[in-house]
Amino acid sequence: MRHNPDLIRTLLSVANALADAARLRTLQHFRAPDLQVDDKGVRAFDPVTAADRAAEEEMRRILAERRPEDAVLGEEGGATTGSSGLTWILDPVDGTRGFLAGTPTWGVLIAVADANGPFIGLIDQPYIGERFVGSPIGATFTGPRGPARLRTRPPRPLPSATLFTTYPEVGTAEEGAAFRRVASAARLTRYGMDCYAYALVAAGHVDLVIEAALAPHDIAAPIAVIEAAGGVVTDWSGGSAAGGGQVIAAANPGIHREALALLAG
Amino acid sequence: MRHNPDLIRTLLSVANALADAARLRTLQHFRAPDLQVDDKGVRAFDPVTAADRAAEEEMRRILAERRPEDAVLGEEGGATTGSSGLTWILDPVDGTRGFLAGTPTWGVLIAVADANGPFIGLIDQPYIGERFVGSPIGATFTGPRGPARLRTRPPRPLPSATLFTTYPEVGTAEEGAAFRRVASAARLTRYGMDCYAYALVAAGHVDLVIEAALAPHDIAAPIAVIEAAGGVVTDWSGGSAAGGGQVIAAANPGIHREALALLAG
Repeated sequence: MRHNPDLIRTLLSVANALADAARLRTLQHFRAPDLQVDDKGVRAFDPVTAADRAAEEEMRRILAERRPEDAVLGEEGGATTGSSGLTWILDPVDGTRGFLAGTPTWGVLIAVADANGPFIGLIDQPYIGERFVGSPIGATFTGPRGPARLRTRPPRPLPSATLFTTYPEVGTAEEGAAFRRVASAARLTRYGMDCYAYALVAAGHVDLVIEAALAPHDIAAPIAVIEAAGGVVTDWSGGSAAGGGQVIAAANPGIHREALALLAG
Repeated sequence: MRHNPDLIRTLLSVANALADAARLRTLQHFRAPDLQVDDKGVRAFDPVTAADRAAEEEMRRILAERRPEDAVLGEEGGATTGSSGLTWILDPVDGTRGFLAGTPTWGVLIAVADANGPFIGLIDQPYIGERFVGSPIGATFTGPRGPARLRTRPPRPLPSATLFTTYPEVGTAEEGAAFRRVASAARLTRYGMDCYAYALVAAGHVDLVIEAALAPHDIAAPIAVIEAAGGVVTDWSGGSAAGGGQVIAAANPGIHREALALLAG
């Protein structure tokens, strides 16, 4: 283990405090009354931007107090340097389009990375009240029916597998074609879930998520959650996914290998 | 009003009792442990079929007791004739693929129709605990944050609108092309929500849902819920949507008209 269990437990406690704060701030704006339109016909208020900013500000305030020596990389507020070698990676509303449309599959993403990449991750869905957490000391889930095991699916062949991506076009024409090679071999392909699809891989309901053009803050938390639950997350060449871009998340090494081969063409 | 308020209230009470029963039966199977596979590699147990059947059987049992003179049309159990002129239309799990993939956007659909079509509708999402109900005496919502107003969005031009469909291909090549004429004019297009997208129209978060190849039991409840909340649901020619097929649900007559014109080509 790269870090001692006491440090891991401290970081998990802070991560949960950040998620609790972000839950309140984002829910204040989720499904809020209709957007105000000013007299020039311009949208005067953007609820997702308001939720994003309020949640990230509050998370940065807590980190400044409890982890002042750690660096912070946030979707809204950019990078704050640190001296501990640890970086908190925050995406206060992943799935902003879904948030705007009222769907309950956006999420708050919180991760801690060291030089080797993310090793603590938390995916929170505030409206449903679900939290998926992974670290070197385990993978846990809490939801409306209480806590449950967080464990990826056992191996199954690709023709029996369920595959997710957010946008049907995936990315460039070439990326879309690579995705469709995997999709045409899979049993079921579904769209539109943003970070929630990665949570479903960690929880053992979905075999694969394949996306392109991700930002580092989109994938840091899913990497740590899925790896702690027994899965594999890489880029489309099998290398680290921590930089974002083309990402594949798989329930187990077998289906990861099978999908990577099809992505390569 | 086609029916007196006392009858409406009785039917709403029965509809809520059916939804309560279906909630229990479907949740027993939602995200259940991994599918069993027998020694020939065949899936020995299909959780969505089990949920569908258990929920519909229980709803039919309640209807036989409380509304013995009404007809029943169920996705699983077919048609039972009646003498009252009223028909209960049941879809115990709408969005079976989403149910199988663990997403929380499938639903239980319950409607009551007379010769003029559905006039009572209920869309229930058991896992989140959300219920969207519409009838001639009003449109109501209950969810994790308590009850809320159920009212469609006020008019806005199509370039500011949010559009949903379940499958990116929509239907035939011609239907897909018609859909994309609307999608390319809208601000935001999202996929994969099944009946939940119609609930979001009723609740005022989404402007349009456009789908093809629906069954009557897929659309009966959304028609009654959305119409009670101020919206419009028709087929792609502006006629009744109660028969299924090509369906458009709109938040208001203005955006309905604008989208219908683009669907016509």
